[in-house]
Amino acid sequence: MAVVPLGSRRHQELQKLLDRLGIQSSGINWNLLDQALTHSSFDPQSNYEPLEFVGDGVLRLLAADYLWHRYPQTPVGEYTALRSVLVSNRLLGQIGQGYGLADFVLASSRLQPQGAWLADLLEAVVGAVYLSTGNVTRLQPCFYPHWDREAQRVLQDPARLNYKNALQEWTQEHYKVLPIYQTEPLSGTPERFMARVYVRKQLVGVGQGESVKAAQQAAAQQAWGVLAGEAGL
Amino acid sequence: MAVVPLGSRRHQELQKLLDRLGIQSSGINWNLLDQALTHSSFDPQSNYEPLEFVGDGVLRLLAADYLWHRYPQTPVGEYTALRSVLVSNRLLGQIGQGYGLADFVLASSRLQPQGAWLADLLEAVVGAVYLSTGNVTRLQPCFYPHWDREAQRVLQDPARLNYKNALQEWTQEHYKVLPIYQTEPLSGTPERFMARVYVRKQLVGVGQGESVKAAQQAAAQQAWGVLAGEAGL
Repeated sequence: MAVVPLGSRRHQELQKLLDRLGIQSSGINWNLLDQALTHSSFDPQSNYEPLEFVGDGVLRLLAADYLWHRYPQTPVGEYTALRSVLVSNRLLGQIGQGYGLADFVLASSRLQPQGAWLADLLEAVVGAVYLSTGNVTRLQPCFYPHWDREAQRVLQDPARLNYKNALQEWTQEHYKVLPIYQTEPLSGTPERFMARVYVRKQLVGVGQGESVKAAQQAAAQQAWGVLAGEAGL
Repeated sequence: MAVVPLGSRRHQELQKLLDRLGIQSSGINWNLLDQALTHSSFDPQSNYEPLEFVGDGVLRLLAADYLWHRYPQTPVGEYTALRSVLVSNRLLGQIGQGYGLADFVLASSRLQPQGAWLADLLEAVVGAVYLSTGNVTRLQPCFYPHWDREAQRVLQDPARLNYKNALQEWTQEHYKVLPIYQTEPLSGTPERFMARVYVRKQLVGVGQGESVKAAQQAAAQQAWGVLAGEAGL
């Protein structure tokens, strides 16, 4: 695969994007960054998908590092729940939208990047920056302000990461029904459990855990993300 | 929390561990490394658990980086399956065992680190190294030789990441039965599917995916890990 130099106009565009994101551009591999913003409808061979895979790992590490330094007193159980909020498609999609990421995407003109797809593209940009520079901390200015706001919001929430309560309140308010849980043991070492949660006969969440309670919390967390996402929360 | 200097004997022990792991010790925070090898039965306040959380993120990134560079031609779908093998508790536990990690653990004497717990401790060591140095690449010599072997083994497997086939062969050979799948749609945007797989009426795997096939593959992968793990494969 020959590497074609980017046109100077595309180069300027990508520099503008990095400026918006607050990411220093020294050492950036511009072809990789271009690839991160290319959809398979534009180029089936070289597009954002493998970079998204790398960026997903980078973001999970960045979020763990963030929580370790910003919330040293928080119990580990809450770390996991908090991180899943910080790297959720919902929040990453919002962040990508806020930075106007869609303006920089190369895709078939019928496709309009939004929601989970914007989240994927932002992950790919993160992957390209990491693979160019080997540097995780350079991404902090792009995410930390959003994460500060989101973490505070979650920690001030009365449901406080208790997704079973949050889900129950939500379904009672909106549908006047309670969520229904089905839990069964899952073979393996150590013994785990799997819970499904239904709202109005629709499966809305699945979760696993080392106890019935932990599995139901995990299922409720997924369901809460789905329902709150549909309601545009 | 006052930081107590480590005794020189413990310091020497930890240096020996890093030598075994092939990790350079410059810049290491020895107290953090000591914490990574301390179980809550020995110190309920300061133990490996939050470091394991950080290390999990580091390893996922290290594995993504590894696959990106070593297997540039592999389809993205296989990246995900390969990474889950590379960072599985099974493999990390084996690696920890191979390095004799249990010799360095501070825990109540009745507890013997093994299996998934060794995996957690190794993740915590990785977390301590990363938080000390901000460096991911320093961990390469500790993992890459094992990952080379494991990735080759998986890629040479006739089932070749087709876990439905692998699981079916396994259950036919051992129990003379076929796995039974139950799949249902899972609400959300985009819509997903959830599959459960049962062997001899026991739930052995759960998976999600954007198609029925992908969800069943994910469930089969978990089941395969469980059954192969119990059989000591």
